[in-house]
Amino acid sequence: MTGPLAGMRVVDVTTNISGPTLTMILADLGAEIIKIERPGTGDDARGMGPFMSGEGVYFLHINRNKESVVIDLKKQDGKQIVYDLVESADVFVENFRQGKAEQMGLGYAKLKAINNQIIYCSLSAYGQSGPQKLQPGYDAIAQAETGIMGINGAKDAELARVPVSILDQGSAMWGVIGILSALLHRKHTGEGQFVSTSLYETGLFWSSYHMLSFLATGEEPQKNGSGHTAFAPYGAYLASDTYIMIGISNQSLFERLCRVLNSMEWLSDQRFRDNKNRVENQYILKEKIELILQRETADYWVTELSAAGIPSSKVKKISEVIDAKQTEALDMWEQVTHDTIEDLRLPRLPFQLSKSTPKVKTASPKLGENTDYVLQSLGYTQERIAELSSSQVIAPYEKELKNR
Amino acid sequence: MTGPLAGMRVVDVTTNISGPTLTMILADLGAEIIKIERPGTGDDARGMGPFMSGEGVYFLHINRNKESVVIDLKKQDGKQIVYDLVESADVFVENFRQGKAEQMGLGYAKLKAINNQIIYCSLSAYGQSGPQKLQPGYDAIAQAETGIMGINGAKDAELARVPVSILDQGSAMWGVIGILSALLHRKHTGEGQFVSTSLYETGLFWSSYHMLSFLATGEEPQKNGSGHTAFAPYGAYLASDTYIMIGISNQSLFERLCRVLNSMEWLSDQRFRDNKNRVENQYILKEKIELILQRETADYWVTELSAAGIPSSKVKKISEVIDAKQTEALDMWEQVTHDTIEDLRLPRLPFQLSKSTPKVKTASPKLGENTDYVLQSLGYTQERIAELSSSQVIAPYEKELKNR
Repeated sequence: MTGPLAGMRVVDVTTNISGPTLTMILADLGAEIIKIERPGTGDDARGMGPFMSGEGVYFLHINRNKESVVIDLKKQDGKQIVYDLVESADVFVENFRQGKAEQMGLGYAKLKAINNQIIYCSLSAYGQSGPQKLQPGYDAIAQAETGIMGINGAKDAELARVPVSILDQGSAMWGVIGILSALLHRKHTGEGQFVSTSLYETGLFWSSYHMLSFLATGEEPQKNGSGHTAFAPYGAYLASDTYIMIGISNQSLFERLCRVLNSMEWLSDQRFRDNKNRVENQYILKEKIELILQRETADYWVTELSAAGIPSSKVKKISEVIDAKQTEALDMWEQVTHDTIEDLRLPRLPFQLSKSTPKVKTASPKLGENTDYVLQSLGYTQERIAELSSSQVIAPYEKELKNR
Repeated sequence: MTGPLAGMRVVDVTTNISGPTLTMILADLGAEIIKIERPGTGDDARGMGPFMSGEGVYFLHINRNKESVVIDLKKQDGKQIVYDLVESADVFVENFRQGKAEQMGLGYAKLKAINNQIIYCSLSAYGQSGPQKLQPGYDAIAQAETGIMGINGAKDAELARVPVSILDQGSAMWGVIGILSALLHRKHTGEGQFVSTSLYETGLFWSSYHMLSFLATGEEPQKNGSGHTAFAPYGAYLASDTYIMIGISNQSLFERLCRVLNSMEWLSDQRFRDNKNRVENQYILKEKIELILQRETADYWVTELSAAGIPSSKVKKISEVIDAKQTEALDMWEQVTHDTIEDLRLPRLPFQLSKSTPKVKTASPKLGENTDYVLQSLGYTQERIAELSSSQVIAPYEKELKNR
């Protein structure tokens, strides 16, 4: 079994995070990804730390299962290689600024003229139209632009971005959903099409609930820490060593909480008798809860709370998550062979398919590792490859290795 | 054009946020979603505020384009309706706790025996195996469990969950990617399969970069506010009225910033001459930047910064995002006809397909609105429908309306 996209060829001219994350998902699903990189430095993400044996960890993660082909796209012979690749490809993905692909001769109209069935995906910062379409944008900037940063964090605390790249990775996921949809459309109709997504559209969609709430109430959404506007007790509570996240969303759960904390008297306390009163008196209740929690460790309480069926978790450190028993039981890490990193493991995609499960098969490629192989597979002769190499349209793999 | 999933039938027994978000994506892509709800109250999300004309805004958003069928799944005749639906369905989606679908007679083995080609998707809190597989979990709890909450927010600030539901909605997106992959697999092989995802797996995957960084360096990832560990100036800076997010990731951008702020002398200042020095002296630099920014509004500065090609954005309020020019230019809002809400608009999915674009066609259904229609389409006679209604296996639509 080689995955549901086995036999698909993707030409990938993306760099940095969002685009390569998109094609990594396609790669794990079995597609062949031909990652085109510029001579010399290649994808900027190769230089992003921290590093394992000189390899950037983010690059390692999001470029697994790909082939690296070094081409100078400014040269006509370089463009021609892409055109030749596109002839036999199913999907083309770019994350240039709006309009740049056209300038480079790699726009949709051009590639469609070469292969009418191509599915062309454009992943940009601000989308295909509008006053900001030409602006550059990173995940953090787009978080500010789409209202997410403004509501993130504890009340009165300094601003903070969401610390995982929900726009880079989120837009990558939407791009994949678009491409898979377009592949299904092509199965039925034989037609290719243009797929587009962006960090901005993704950010707006993450904010849907807050935007609709504003439209319903006219109240500006605010930073709310770990709490919940509608429920109490709900949030992070301090035990003797660290915090526990507890979510009490109905009366039955509150009764169970009172039992675990040996505080049945709260049930007859007017201040806590129902959710409405608990929300009003949440700070008094919090103090009382923490007074009890501080007698034992977070691990102790989470065991007790979970046994009582109360949704709760220790607020874990990243290092605690990596080798948690649940992480291990779900086989979240895949061991990957790498020539210089001894014990390389990477997380699998967060879903499983019983018959065609996504796999990490190979580590991220060295810059230009597959240039020769891919050109040969296009029918380029050794002579022609040598020519292209001496005119610096492509760069031979050995040379790149020295330059790294 | 009715979308790439036109003609697909999805039987949906999910409730709350994650599962219904998953099937909403399939619905926008053109699939027919038969949403099965319990008599009386239906999906719990119907009761989640805030409300527009009595309809919960989150429910309105994530249940558009669906058909509501009220069935009591505890009754054998109720289960039989699901079996009949599954016979002609392509996809079945559930988000029960692990093992509950089997107990209810709705497990994969049972449904596969009815329809060998069915794609069965299970979306749970903690996944299909492991010590926590039976635990309940919400988005916020799973954020604590997977390390995200622990690194969110400003340094030294109180804990905060990520304020958009990146695990509910994220797992929904992964579920969709899994289902679309399985549909492609079925096109090639004729085989159905079991697709699974969870909040926990999704949370781990969001944390990939931080987990790999820890494995590379041994340093525990920390809360980092709006800043960046590797670059300066980078973060939220205060103008006269509100904050601006600025991201300076290379020397050329820093030079442009100095020009816009009329502070070319920073370029020859030893403390700021390169990124390394700027990171070391970032708080001094921040003070200097804010001293200048406070002379004008955020809007003024963002116009200037953008004109100079510097990645930046005002840290916007949610209310500012809704009708931003860029939001409008991208047609992010779709006007939806609703019988009691006059001006209902909902955000479209954050990607576009040139030939089969996702659409919001109908508002979320009233509880049981489509029960009769769907049963008739299965060949149930009016007599049989009346029988099922009087034995309370189903609930007629009129009665439900009164109960709402």
